[in-house]
Amino acid sequence: MAVNLSLPDPKSLTPVPGVELGIAMAGIKKSGRKDLLVIGLGPSATVAGVFTKNRFCAAPVLLAKKHLTSKRIRALVVNTGNANAGTGQDGLRRALQVCTALAGKMHAKPFQILPFSTGVIMEPLPAGRIVAGLPAAIADLRADNWAAAAEAIMTTDTMPKACSRKVKLSGGVVVVTGIAKGSGMIRPDMATMLGFVATDARVPQQSLQSMVRRVSNQSFNCITVDGDTSTNDAFMLIASGVGVAASSEQDRKILEQTILEVSRSLAQAVIRDGEGATKFVTVTVERGRSEAECRKIAYAIAHSPLVKTAFFASDPNLGRILAAVGYAGIKDLDSGRIDLFLEDVFVVKAGGRNPSYLESDAIAAMRKPEFTVRVVLNRGRASATIWTCDFSYDYVKINAEYRS
Amino acid sequence: MAVNLSLPDPKSLTPVPGVELGIAMAGIKKSGRKDLLVIGLGPSATVAGVFTKNRFCAAPVLLAKKHLTSKRIRALVVNTGNANAGTGQDGLRRALQVCTALAGKMHAKPFQILPFSTGVIMEPLPAGRIVAGLPAAIADLRADNWAAAAEAIMTTDTMPKACSRKVKLSGGVVVVTGIAKGSGMIRPDMATMLGFVATDARVPQQSLQSMVRRVSNQSFNCITVDGDTSTNDAFMLIASGVGVAASSEQDRKILEQTILEVSRSLAQAVIRDGEGATKFVTVTVERGRSEAECRKIAYAIAHSPLVKTAFFASDPNLGRILAAVGYAGIKDLDSGRIDLFLEDVFVVKAGGRNPSYLESDAIAAMRKPEFTVRVVLNRGRASATIWTCDFSYDYVKINAEYRS
Repeated sequence: MAVNLSLPDPKSLTPVPGVELGIAMAGIKKSGRKDLLVIGLGPSATVAGVFTKNRFCAAPVLLAKKHLTSKRIRALVVNTGNANAGTGQDGLRRALQVCTALAGKMHAKPFQILPFSTGVIMEPLPAGRIVAGLPAAIADLRADNWAAAAEAIMTTDTMPKACSRKVKLSGGVVVVTGIAKGSGMIRPDMATMLGFVATDARVPQQSLQSMVRRVSNQSFNCITVDGDTSTNDAFMLIASGVGVAASSEQDRKILEQTILEVSRSLAQAVIRDGEGATKFVTVTVERGRSEAECRKIAYAIAHSPLVKTAFFASDPNLGRILAAVGYAGIKDLDSGRIDLFLEDVFVVKAGGRNPSYLESDAIAAMRKPEFTVRVVLNRGRASATIWTCDFSYDYVKINAEYRS
Repeated sequence: MAVNLSLPDPKSLTPVPGVELGIAMAGIKKSGRKDLLVIGLGPSATVAGVFTKNRFCAAPVLLAKKHLTSKRIRALVVNTGNANAGTGQDGLRRALQVCTALAGKMHAKPFQILPFSTGVIMEPLPAGRIVAGLPAAIADLRADNWAAAAEAIMTTDTMPKACSRKVKLSGGVVVVTGIAKGSGMIRPDMATMLGFVATDARVPQQSLQSMVRRVSNQSFNCITVDGDTSTNDAFMLIASGVGVAASSEQDRKILEQTILEVSRSLAQAVIRDGEGATKFVTVTVERGRSEAECRKIAYAIAHSPLVKTAFFASDPNLGRILAAVGYAGIKDLDSGRIDLFLEDVFVVKAGGRNPSYLESDAIAAMRKPEFTVRVVLNRGRASATIWTCDFSYDYVKINAEYRS
């Protein structure tokens, strides 16, 4: 079902020195599936992250944010099958119970553990089962476990998502490897469902924190499946510090670019594996007055159920795109200046149908599994690009049947 | 498919003295269906209206807004099958061509005609066919033609929508009768797809204009099918002036209340007949700081594809509602104070699962074709109510196949 997404080859995922991953089957929701991940870090590691802005953010998000201020993180623990969101004080208590149990086994303090959960909202976290699964996950801790880790954090994902790059800094080569999960409830607002990217480079926590903000704004914050911002979004960037230091400005730029490539590839994988997705669509809005207005229009297009069902049908009912541009909330937008392209097909010229436009050309472009919608506002120099998918029968099926 | 919506009984639709309706089959898109409506008014009539805020508003909307300033409207002309939107200058020319032709036949000036179009966006209006259909529509002008008029303005609607009331003012009884159309691309922003409500009362244009604003805010502006604000939305209020005058403040209040009842019934009919709808859902947000924040939260719930698919499945996956409340954009919202009810089932108490909540009760409530979701913010005295429908396989089917 996923669009042009292949299983990550475990051999292509380079281990990150200083980062170990352990997986277990804790039977959180179903027995016999990987549902618990522990990421172990050494004392030289720095960790930074961005979290959902959803006001109903989950108990583990609240706790992870708090623990992140300690700056001496020793482990991350991730469970799937239960989001521990909408669970109030009891949810916080259960998340802390998991941190305390893991801290005890790793000779650390509870505040040195970052907890993450994903799955159904508003059901009590089976903390007992998670705690019981920890020893197996710890026993499994290995540096070459990224592929299994990508699998252990899946919910409605049909494919695990992982990506790896190497890059040369002034002091030597460093590795960047990451995993992500997400398929529905995807409209990250500072982060995606769950993304973990690690490097062995040595980066001070403060630089890492600015890096994670910039990178998320150009990767996980540029995607949408259904416009639903999750309660559990988190994107964490780990620098194990056992490799060379990213000491110069130049080094940090090169490293950040590589982290961005890995993160974008992961973010796009989330869309390729979007619930029910049959098309991967790039929406670019150009020549706007600000990046913000370009994004607003791009998201209006990407969230319109009418546009998304037209994508699904390969039906160039492109007036629906104009309607979305028109209601995006840009009050002084002059519709008479707008051009619209589908791939290289010039569809709308100055707000009306381009006289030389042939619908057959648009159909051919939309039948491809990947295509670009490009809106040119002709009122400024800013632009924005986001990635989305179509809206199919299977989206309804998956979400009408999830849980049951 | 429509939820608890029955065919309007033509006998229940009271004619409005001073308002005549004529229908024709102009073959705009398909032959053999009613697709053209002319509403004829006498010289004593006043007309007021609200229109879409979509920046890509259609040519007839631009023209109707302009003509409305003349205040001496003699006829409205409505075609279905083509929206004449996204059509630029050529679209304006074609809309004017229709007004000019009708004006010629009705001894009026083109600026005394209000044009309305609904249907596919970005295709040239077949003005020739519409003009050719006008004589038949004019020959058909009758006061008791409301049921046929409701049919003539349908697009993807499965049922015509009409409603009628009588009310006693100080000077005597007046009639309020209206029709509306709409099923998809429904998230009116000052009006719905198309709504026409008429009374024989005498009301000055200025009072009528304030009335139409207030009424639309409590009726057509409280509904959403898919969050897509149409390019052609218009809601028109006609006072033929051949009946008694709504002369006192008290009279105008009584009349406005009746117009609101008719308009609400029409707006709710649009939702009951929403594309693919199997559920009619009332979303109420209470005890907020302002009506605006209550509406924002209600719309976030009503637009969430995840919430809507859960409605379709009668699946109380109610964490999805909390997630929507959380991302509605109320920055200082305290999730720990929020209660959630499904009908009378107390689901969420102070931001967490109510200990005495039984999922079986929620399932029973959601299996009904109509139910209420009530969110209590516990931070103020304002409230808002909107109406929406679920998101089914058929929504995707209808919109992936529309046009073909």
